Amino acid sequence: MQRYFLDAHPVDGLLTLPQDVAHHLTTVLRAQAGTKVEVVPSDHRAYLAEVVATTPQTTVKIIEPLGTDSELPVAVTLLCGLPKTKEKPELIVQKATELGARKVVFFESERSISHWAANKRARKLGRLQKIADSAAEQSHRNCQPQVEYYADLATALAAEPADFRVVAWEESAKQGETAALAQVLAKIKPGQSIAAVFGPEGGLTTGEVDQMTAAGVTPVGLGPRILRTETAPLYLMAAISYALELASSRK
Amino acid sequence: MQRYFLDAHPVDGLLTLPQDVAHHLTTVLRAQAGTKVEVVPSDHRAYLAEVVATTPQTTVKIIEPLGTDSELPVAVTLLCGLPKTKEKPELIVQKATELGARKVVFFESERSISHWAANKRARKLGRLQKIADSAAEQSHRNCQPQVEYYADLATALAAEPADFRVVAWEESAKQGETAALAQVLAKIKPGQSIAAVFGPEGGLTTGEVDQMTAAGVTPVGLGPRILRTETAPLYLMAAISYALELASSRK
Repeated sequence: MQRYFLDAHPVDGLLTLPQDVAHHLTTVLRAQAGTKVEVVPSDHRAYLAEVVATTPQTTVKIIEPLGTDSELPVAVTLLCGLPKTKEKPELIVQKATELGARKVVFFESERSISHWAANKRARKLGRLQKIADSAAEQSHRNCQPQVEYYADLATALAAEPADFRVVAWEESAKQGETAALAQVLAKIKPGQSIAAVFGPEGGLTTGEVDQMTAAGVTPVGLGPRILRTETAPLYLMAAISYALELASSRK
Repeated sequence: MQRYFLDAHPVDGLLTLPQDVAHHLTTVLRAQAGTKVEVVPSDHRAYLAEVVATTPQTTVKIIEPLGTDSELPVAVTLLCGLPKTKEKPELIVQKATELGARKVVFFESERSISHWAANKRARKLGRLQKIADSAAEQSHRNCQPQVEYYADLATALAAEPADFRVVAWEESAKQGETAALAQVLAKIKPGQSIAAVFGPEGGLTTGEVDQMTAAGVTPVGLGPRILRTETAPLYLMAAISYALELASSRK
């Protein structure tokens, strides 16, 4: 069933849909009075609702809470060195949203070849935010992840504190380091936060990694294979979900 | 360092490169006598080698075995219901290769909208195999995964036996089933094999899932979020790597 995020509180159980959502629901999906939809108002809870009017404005009535929460038990922020193509940030944002990320940050790493000119940042972020919003609806999330941009690593680290911070570091993998990520995921508690840093295509510089380890960020390996810049964050998201949502409930 | 797979055994420590590899090494990468490369001959072991001649044929000399093995401890076969776009099989093959899959199979599922005409299969498979081969080099695998195509699920299941077989089933996730995958990954031993089935965009039909459970395939949930057809196999690959390569070595 189609799910929509609505930046509003229901009034008397009724929600009036903004124009873009109303257009999608009534024109693209041809909804009529009586059509059921799922809505997530600003309380981040999912409700079953029903269209009660399509004119003059499209209005839905809350039927009941769905009682489902598809959010990861921990808040994950991905900090990605800006990749060189336009497609890679889009792929990272879409897939990380499906996999449960709470926030996706791009920063200009020392080896980033791309650069977002100041006058284009708002437009680029807006485009990525739309991808996140749409993927959050499709994957039936309870939150829309936030997309953010910082000019450099130091700014990104300062702006994104977290209970646990890790950096995916290829050299950790080469040295056969296999336990650091699992140790972090064994310690983290529901409600806590984790931030994870990833390099762009050429990888992070030794200077950037030193800067992070000095700031208490833990280098972690993601297995013995070399992952592309857009694959590593998705590996981490799946590993967090597996460790905290699937393996932890094994009887 | 560049890695090449070579379908040959060294003779007196020397390997003559096939024309496409020689072209890439000498023309694209401008290698000369003395340039170091990594090669994986038909023994699937990785060696450090050095260019000793570029004419009349490009020849490399084995220096020493690298002693690295980046293969997953278990052989993973992904069986994917054919997605409707050309891009999704390409993304699945590339990312699954990076993440360590041994074989990627596409089959026409009941809800597959695409169909590979018999006279186009070889060309389509050839293209996907090239993507796998190239991704295997980039991610420093010791094996090139094999890409295969079957007309339907029954043929795919019959052709791909495995020690453990699972199917990603959205209804399992909806019912809050969270332990099945972790139970399988706790049981599987190094050297064993696992095959995992995924639906196309519209999902598997109940009939297909019944057919599989009757054949002993275990339905597994991949967490509470709805994953797209191309994301679910990548989640599974990362979960297998995390469980068997990272979490198992936690001290």
